[in-house]
Parts: sequence; structure tokens; C-alpha cells
Amino acid sequence: MKTPKISEAVIRRLPVYLRCLQMLQEMNIRTVSSYELGQKLDMNPAQIRKDLAYFGEFGRKGIGYEVVYLVEKIRQILKLDRHVNVALVGAGHLGIALSNYNRYTEEKLMIAAIFDTDPEKIGKHVGSLTIQHIDELETAVQELDIRIGMITVPAPYAQGVADRLVQAGVKGILNFAPVSLLVPPDVHLRSTDVTTELHALAYYIQE
Amino acid sequence: MKTPKISEAVIRRLPVYLRCLQMLQEMNIRTVSSYELGQKLDMNPAQIRKDLAYFGEFGRKGIGYEVVYLVEKIRQILKLDRHVNVALVGAGHLGIALSNYNRYTEEKLMIAAIFDTDPEKIGKHVGSLTIQHIDELETAVQELDIRIGMITVPAPYAQGVADRLVQAGVKGILNFAPVSLLVPPDVHLRSTDVTTELHALAYYIQE
Repeated sequence: MKTPKISEAVIRRLPVYLRCLQMLQEMNIRTVSSYELGQKLDMNPAQIRKDLAYFGEFGRKGIGYEVVYLVEKIRQILKLDRHVNVALVGAGHLGIALSNYNRYTEEKLMIAAIFDTDPEKIGKHVGSLTIQHIDELETAVQELDIRIGMITVPAPYAQGVADRLVQAGVKGILNFAPVSLLVPPDVHLRSTDVTTELHALAYYIQE
Repeated sequence: MKTPKISEAVIRRLPVYLRCLQMLQEMNIRTVSSYELGQKLDMNPAQIRKDLAYFGEFGRKGIGYEVVYLVEKIRQILKLDRHVNVALVGAGHLGIALSNYNRYTEEKLMIAAIFDTDPEKIGKHVGSLTIQHIDELETAVQELDIRIGMITVPAPYAQGVADRLVQAGVKGILNFAPVSLLVPPDVHLRSTDVTTELHALAYYIQE
């Protein structure tokens, strides 16, 4: 499917719609209106209609969206219908917590390898994965065709890990270290950091 | 300081500027231009100038921004110059990882209490905190004047925890559970979820 260039804001909202729709699917709900989605997501229904209209006419007036069909469409748009392997670097508490992702997903996007440098951790099992030494990163990226790297190492090591992931050929990085990383323009970087989230909340709670 | 109503997008970027400026401060760098900030943050310098101009004329042509002054100003704007106590609910791997926040911050915004329901965990120490039973939440929110709650419990429990936090008087919630929560309009909710972040990345890496 050829789709026009879509803004990052829309792409970021699609997984939120997907999560909500998958919950409806589990509850065997067949159709949902943009109004109902708006209620559940605390969003403007017009925004939801506009976002989804980007990809074609999914909804029908008076009936709404067919849940199963829309789930499938969003998964196609996000390319979640293909296998994508993810590497996780940093097997501390955050890394272990995030590796639980595998347990709860039925997607083809999976954490396929986990790395650390701590000799105490290497060889230990985390779910179905075994913690490997970071020096095995490059080989693993090649062999497992890893496309995304998640960085959960302490801040001072994060740029070095990002450089290695990029060098190895990874095209997407999700950074959890509280530091701004630099990557080449062809690599897509997303950062999520509890400090910046908390600091943004601080503004609102005291108004 | 009276400031005009500022968009959420700007408020979300301020902590990112702050983090970068604090790093410059640690390196004893005195002034920085919007161009240099743009380079470090991979952002458009015009966007940075526009965001900061919201709060007054901080920069000077040809010299740039005074780092120490700008750090102080942003901290004032975000109200990080005041004590804010945070409660963390869910002492699993993610909760423990996030409680490390206290160790690395010099802000007055701190995690002041941590809760769980697991009898095995209650009474255990996490840094300087002791894990308390969730039934002590309401008392702790009152006594410690807790304003923000972080939710790191499994998805099925997250709405219940959010309801208790709101009922207890918390005005900001940072949700890490992979579920959409509903809170009253006077409570500010931010959600961060590895699944939605990974799914948004999946779109980009296959283009």
C-alpha cells in the first residue's frame, strides 16, 4: 500500500488507537464510532476521524468503524504485519522490565536479543532470552536482522551504545537514558525519559 | 511570575532544553547559541528561539543565552524551584528502575513514597524509601503533600490505582501501564508505554 507522507504526530497516535481497538476486539466489540473512541482515549473525535481518514475511508456514517478491519489496517500501516527484531542493550531493572514486552504482545515485533557488559549478568535468562555480552551485538544484528535498538544503559554509556547500534545497521532507536543522543539522519530516534516527563508534569500540577 | 497560557508541546520541550543546559553547566560552559542548542538536540534553532521567547528575552544577539541564567529561568517556569513529592505505585522492575530517579536528581521534585500490594515486597528498602502497602496511599498523600503519582502496576490494575490517586488528591499522573486511563479534567495525565513507542518506530524503520 502506498501512503502519503504522514506527520510524526499522526504516526505516534496510531499505536494508541491500535491498543484501544485491540482491547475492544478482545471484548468482542464489532464496531466503534469516533465518538466512542474519543471518549475512551480522552481525545477529540474529529481528530480521530481526520487521522484515520489519512489512510482511506474506513468508517461508515451511523455505524462507525469495524474494529477487526481497522486493527488490521493500522497494523498494515505501521508495518506490524512483518517480523521485526529488536535488540535491548542494558539488562538492569529497566531493561528487564521492558523485556516483559515480549510476554504481553502477539505482534511480530519482538525483542530478539538482550545485551549487557556485567559478567554477573551475562548468560542469565530473561524470559526466553539469554543476556549476551555487548561485543556480540554486531554479529547478532546481522544474524537476526535486528532493525530497532532499545537503550537502557546509564546515561554516560548511551551515546556509545547508540553509535554501535547505528554502525551495526539498526534503523530505529528507542532511548530510555536521560541524555540527548545524536544519530545520523537516516536513523529514527525516539527518546523517553522519566525526568523530562516528571518535569513537564510539575508545570501543570501547581497551576 | 505571570506567564501566558503555554501550549503542551512547548512545556514538553522545556525539560529537554533544561537537561541539555544543565549538562553544559556541568561542563562550565557559560553561553550557548540557539544554533548550538539546535545541533545538540537535533532541533531547528528557530523553534528553540521561539519557545524560549515565550518567557521573555533571555538571549542576546551574537552572544546567545547565558546558561546559568536560562537554567534558573526554565526551572522557575516549570516550578522546579519548589518541593514536589511524587508517589510511585508498583514496585516491580519498572518501579525500582524509576525510583533510581531520586539518586540522579538534584531537583526538589522527588519520589517520596513507593507502594505495592505484594507482602513479599512491603517493608523492603529501595534507596532511601521503604515499600509500603497501597492501603497507606491516602494517608501518605495527605501527610507528604504528594502531588504526582507514577503508575507502574500491570495494566489491569492501572485504572484502579489512578482512581485512588485522584481520590487522594493527586493532580498529576504519569502512567507507564500499557492501557489508556481516564482521569477528571483537573488532573493532568501523561502516558508513556514501550508498546506504543515501538509500534511508532516500526513505521519508520521499514521505509
